[in-house]
Amino acid sequence: MADEKKAPAPEEKRVRARELGVAPGIFMPGPHNGITDVSGVRVGHATVIAGDSVRTGVTAILPHGGNLFRERVPAAIHVMNGFGKLLGSTQVNELGELESPVLLTCTLCVWRVADALVGWMLEQPGMEDVRSINPVVGETNDGRLNAIHTRPVGDKEVRAALAQASSGPVVEGSVGAGTGTVAFGWKGGIGTSSRVLPKKLGGYTVGVLVQSNFGGVLQVMGAPVGKALGRYAYQKDVVERGDGSIMMVVATDAPVDHRNLRRLAERATLGLGRTGSSASNGSGDYVIAFSTAASVRRAFNAERMTAETLGNDTLSPLFQAVVEATEEAIYNSLFMASTVSGNGQKVEAIPLARVREVLRQHGVGQPVTP
Amino acid sequence: MADEKKAPAPEEKRVRARELGVAPGIFMPGPHNGITDVSGVRVGHATVIAGDSVRTGVTAILPHGGNLFRERVPAAIHVMNGFGKLLGSTQVNELGELESPVLLTCTLCVWRVADALVGWMLEQPGMEDVRSINPVVGETNDGRLNAIHTRPVGDKEVRAALAQASSGPVVEGSVGAGTGTVAFGWKGGIGTSSRVLPKKLGGYTVGVLVQSNFGGVLQVMGAPVGKALGRYAYQKDVVERGDGSIMMVVATDAPVDHRNLRRLAERATLGLGRTGSSASNGSGDYVIAFSTAASVRRAFNAERMTAETLGNDTLSPLFQAVVEATEEAIYNSLFMASTVSGNGQKVEAIPLARVREVLRQHGVGQPVTP
Amino acid sequence: MADEKKAPAPEEKRVRARELGVAPGIFMPGPHNGITDVSGVRVGHATVIAGDSVRTGVTAILPHGGNLFRERVPAAIHVMNGFGKLLGSTQVNELGELESPVLLTCTLCVWRVADALVGWMLEQPGMEDVRSINPVVGETNDGRLNAIHTRPVGDKEVRAALAQASSGPVVEGSVGAGTGTVAFGWKGGIGTSSRVLPKKLGGYTVGVLVQSNFGGVLQVMGAPVGKALGRYAYQKDVVERGDGSIMMVVATDAPVDHRNLRRLAERATLGLGRTGSSASNGSGDYVIAFSTAASVRRAFNAERMTAETLGNDTLSPLFQAVVEATEEAIYNSLFMASTVSGNGQKVEAIPLARVREVLRQHGVGQPVTP
Amino acid sequence: MADEKKAPAPEEKRVRARELGVAPGIFMPGPHNGITDVSGVRVGHATVIAGDSVRTGVTAILPHGGNLFRERVPAAIHVMNGFGKLLGSTQVNELGELESPVLLTCTLCVWRVADALVGWMLEQPGMEDVRSINPVVGETNDGRLNAIHTRPVGDKEVRAALAQASSGPVVEGSVGAGTGTVAFGWKGGIGTSSRVLPKKLGGYTVGVLVQSNFGGVLQVMGAPVGKALGRYAYQKDVVERGDGSIMMVVATDAPVDHRNLRRLAERATLGLGRTGSSASNGSGDYVIAFSTAASVRRAFNAERMTAETLGNDTLSPLFQAVVEATEEAIYNSLFMASTVSGNGQKVEAIPLARVREVLRQHGVGQPVTP
Repeated sequence: MADEKKAPAPEEKRVRARELGVAPGIFMPGPHNGITDVSGVRVGHATVIAGDSVRTGVTAILPHGGNLFRERVPAAIHVMNGFGKLLGSTQVNELGELESPVLLTCTLCVWRVADALVGWMLEQPGMEDVRSINPVVGETNDGRLNAIHTRPVGDKEVRAALAQASSGPVVEGSVGAGTGTVAFGWKGGIGTSSRVLPKKLGGYTVGVLVQSNFGGVLQVMGAPVGKALGRYAYQKDVVERGDGSIMMVVATDAPVDHRNLRRLAERATLGLGRTGSSASNGSGDYVIAFSTAASVRRAFNAERMTAETLGNDTLSPLFQAVVEATEEAIYNSLFMASTVSGNGQKVEAIPLARVREVLRQHGVGQPVTP
Repeated sequence: MADEKKAPAPEEKRVRARELGVAPGIFMPGPHNGITDVSGVRVGHATVIAGDSVRTGVTAILPHGGNLFRERVPAAIHVMNGFGKLLGSTQVNELGELESPVLLTCTLCVWRVADALVGWMLEQPGMEDVRSINPVVGETNDGRLNAIHTRPVGDKEVRAALAQASSGPVVEGSVGAGTGTVAFGWKGGIGTSSRVLPKKLGGYTVGVLVQSNFGGVLQVMGAPVGKALGRYAYQKDVVERGDGSIMMVVATDAPVDHRNLRRLAERATLGLGRTGSSASNGSGDYVIAFSTAASVRRAFNAERMTAETLGNDTLSPLFQAVVEATEEAIYNSLFMASTVSGNGQKVEAIPLARVREVLRQHGVGQPVTP
Repeated sequence: MADEKKAPAPEEKRVRARELGVAPGIFMPGPHNGITDVSGVRVGHATVIAGDSVRTGVTAILPHGGNLFRERVPAAIHVMNGFGKLLGSTQVNELGELESPVLLTCTLCVWRVADALVGWMLEQPGMEDVRSINPVVGETNDGRLNAIHTRPVGDKEVRAALAQASSGPVVEGSVGAGTGTVAFGWKGGIGTSSRVLPKKLGGYTVGVLVQSNFGGVLQVMGAPVGKALGRYAYQKDVVERGDGSIMMVVATDAPVDHRNLRRLAERATLGLGRTGSSASNGSGDYVIAFSTAASVRRAFNAERMTAETLGNDTLSPLFQAVVEATEEAIYNSLFMASTVSGNGQKVEAIPLARVREVLRQHGVGQPVTP
Repeated sequence: MADEKKAPAPEEKRVRARELGVAPGIFMPGPHNGITDVSGVRVGHATVIAGDSVRTGVTAILPHGGNLFRERVPAAIHVMNGFGKLLGSTQVNELGELESPVLLTCTLCVWRVADALVGWMLEQPGMEDVRSINPVVGETNDGRLNAIHTRPVGDKEVRAALAQASSGPVVEGSVGAGTGTVAFGWKGGIGTSSRVLPKKLGGYTVGVLVQSNFGGVLQVMGAPVGKALGRYAYQKDVVERGDGSIMMVVATDAPVDHRNLRRLAERATLGLGRTGSSASNGSGDYVIAFSTAASVRRAFNAERMTAETLGNDTLSPLFQAVVEATEEAIYNSLFMASTVSGNGQKVEAIPLARVREVLRQHGVGQPVTP
């Protein structure tokens, strides 16, 4: 059953949300419609598949290509539901900055992944005297498809994801930290999207990347896909129990400080809500937001910083962009994910033909004429 | 222009969301489809209309019919966007309880309203020795239709709202604290909705009441009403700038303590997101949640309390119910609001005929067949 | 009994802590040893004494002499114990700024005081179009000496405090918002202190003003004054029950943003702890911190702000300064407070002769030779 | 240099604070004057000393002797200064409970320690189907005496600390997680203390254990030991820079829920302040509090819980007890710590003879007569 050991071929070609006409909101995406549209941001995956039961991985998001410890980006973490193991949150919110890549992986893998990340960082030039590093590692629980007790992500995989990190299009679906995740009862995974504000609203880019592993009552731009497919939470259905988690990473090139990044982060949850989540008890829902703008970057241990930042009221269009990109990133994570079997279980990709039909019935993807 | 001085007659009959087929979610509402479906909860309004430019009011929500100071309900407040004047939040979250009715009013009215509420409470039997009261008063800014500088809500109006408070159906739309509010560029106001969990999920009731005065890009169960009507934020449009605020009040008869009420409160923001809000900078978005369950009620200064509460994992269906009821309460606030002129401005009720058409095009209200 | 109606003459001359040799910490105070050592900060009091039972007042702290709404200072509020009525906290922490003077008064007076402050602000030039103001008003409960039900502080008193506000030495003790307060079972009140950092640590000034109305087990630089005087909480003693609250206001001319001001604010609680507080349940303990530095001031609705701020690691000496100045401000509030009778009660000033004796026994005020 | 490789013999016999007459506060300690006075609590250490430069360890605190995952204790974490790597905080505060032992170790060791703890927990009976565990692991930075880059604490050491955990007296000083820490420029380490409330105040026990690695201006019950010994922060002195961190663990047998445990936790910082800390930027200061009371214990996945808890106002004496026990635990950590050399550095134990002299000059330990 060699085929079973890899992520199996999907039944139907996976496509991104826009190919189904799913284009939430009013702003336009950037060229890759991904978090890498924010200049400098890199993403890398290591997919970990072994034997019958290891289906997991790690995904790395790097705010820029330099030494992230020495040239820090302002950052904030919003905890919507803290039932999760996200590492590094208190320091990010205390100091207002990120000093490591952001890694996503499986629940019981976070500690090995963090240790490996610290090992890798300590090897970088200029890190000899560093005695404290705050790795930010998030997770969702892929224990249905993955033998999570074995904690199968470590040094090798972390280094692979970091080495592979690049700008350009992001691989989505059942890959990296999304290899074994489940969303709305279907195969979830990695998804990404972006928005570029019109020039008159600042022209900034916002990018979002998610690791989807949560549930609820799936709706796609309001179209009741979950109901139509008969798979949704809180019903007799035993397949979808509404649980699981989501990690959301928000990047922007807008010059925004910690306080307003926290506000940006919180807005991602509004996009989450639009897809049908009600943030169930078991769903550890976290948002990590950072700004790559040069004017807010911080040298390690700088005694003074001069930062040009946006005033509070200039933030609103960015809030809207975060909501839109989060919603679309989640759809991408679902639509791009392929069926995966592992650990004695099989989780199917969401059937896109049926999704198309529901969307058609609900006018999604058809022009709106005022 | 005597007609101008009252809330003018609507152009078309206002109806609740369900009459348009708008029934978000999977759970059923209670008999009134309102916050008063939570047994014991009372709502009262005082609408304040005077001259050409006073269009405001006050709405009172009472968790039960007894002495709220002496028989306290557990409560929590979630601040999504703290750009607002909500009074009483720190004490509710510190002590985990509500000791007053919740009043909603206009932004610059909150202090007079709180002072009046305290005056009224001090007059109740058994309050002679009380030296500290924590009135919870929220607000949104109706300064477009209302001469807010005059702060025209005080003792008389507060007493009227409290006296009028009753169980049963809640009056919605341009009434009480919703008299002068604006939502999505149309007339906003008071809206309410409820959900009753199936017996196997506990059979509890959740009720939500909102004072809508916010904006964004209106969608009704996903149908792009804002775009179709050509009125939405962040565009050339000058009518709708996406700003304003929303107050959300969540009641339940489920036995839930402060910690889990805070979690319930936060879920209301997911319902808010579904209507098209991105919680703009200027939108003070607050949620006040309380439980009326007898098993968690607290006598004033009790040395010990024995409370039977739900375990964390039993909360998830309640979270779903909060999201659904919040979304529907917001639609009700819009659909039930009538056109109001005041302060030299006129804000129109959302045209329901056109809304119906958009809903029809998007299959909202049509049966979903799995 | 005319004498009874005024704050009665003290039994012994009241002096500041330093005159007793009480000089906590390692840094030196500024010229006034008060919050007004932070350049531009103004303080004004209105003391409200009437009949047999009104013993209260209002104290105003103004960050600078201009229009505080139009030229905002960054600010943060730390809530150690939210059992209090502090108005304005959520907005200060959301927007990271203060847009009004800070007023302190009696618990049940806060709403009238806030309404009066808003009235005054709306009268200032350039405020015609303003529809939202966030007054920050704190309180402690002087209901033992003061007929608090009458809520006897309003428009006239607020205007008097604002009009009287000035730089220079601050009047301390039983004055303004400290007229009727009680601390450690003795008369409390207003106290202030400051610290100036050495040039090599930045040369910045930190000033603290407190309204003391709390309790515990009084110690003065460790000397067990509470025990020696036989008056302390949690014992058979009925006079001192450890309850009450404290409002702490921290000003600095160091260029610090909201996030680090919140950290500064939290450090004030360490100074509070040193005086013998354990922040009892009934003690609403709040800290309001702001920076007056020109480089961080914000024009109302500025689209962009360029701010030079201190790096995180440069903050530590400021933290130390806040702790020291808070501790000393509390001592000043006690030592400067005179005996007050009102409401059928009498609260005595702490007997300084006995304090001196305890301090002497414990080596406080004697040189420390390494 | 075999002696160099062990924790070297102290120059003078180390004693606990009470043997120096240092007995802060008004309540009495329990029989062991340690966290283990809270019935059921166990503490174990593994000290890790290897070669010239490994000087570290791990300390385990177990709320009870059963399966901590299946029989959970309510818990809360207070973050005073989030500059630290404490693992598990968001879940503890979201769910209001602890599901693992609390481990303390060195900064860069936390991830290996957490992974080892999870491995150990998964081996316990009844854990086969568990897919999510939230290990709580705190740290301070012993990188001066310890080659922290090597991250020398792992599986073996964690198992040793857990196996060795017992009730009864707690070993203090340069042991376990305190092996390599530095406090106020002297050798720090593990310290513990307890308080038992008088019967009329409930008779409950509060215990505190600290891992001290922080600084400031040391004072012992107010006696200016830091100044007298010429070693304190923010001066020309290069030995003591005021940095470092402290982990504080608070246990009680009082029936207190999450919300009030958070309040208890925050009070520990007042005890910290009394020793001379101003919580410098680099000092990650965390408090973990839990209740062992049977009436608040929670079975894993219980659908309902009936808990008898203390009313808010009954908490105040517990707050006082936390402050006292924290202060004394810190003194114990200093006074019991022996000199340690490692990593090319030597950190001396605080010279107790000189401490005694300063205490004597300041009347500490002498009877207070009202």
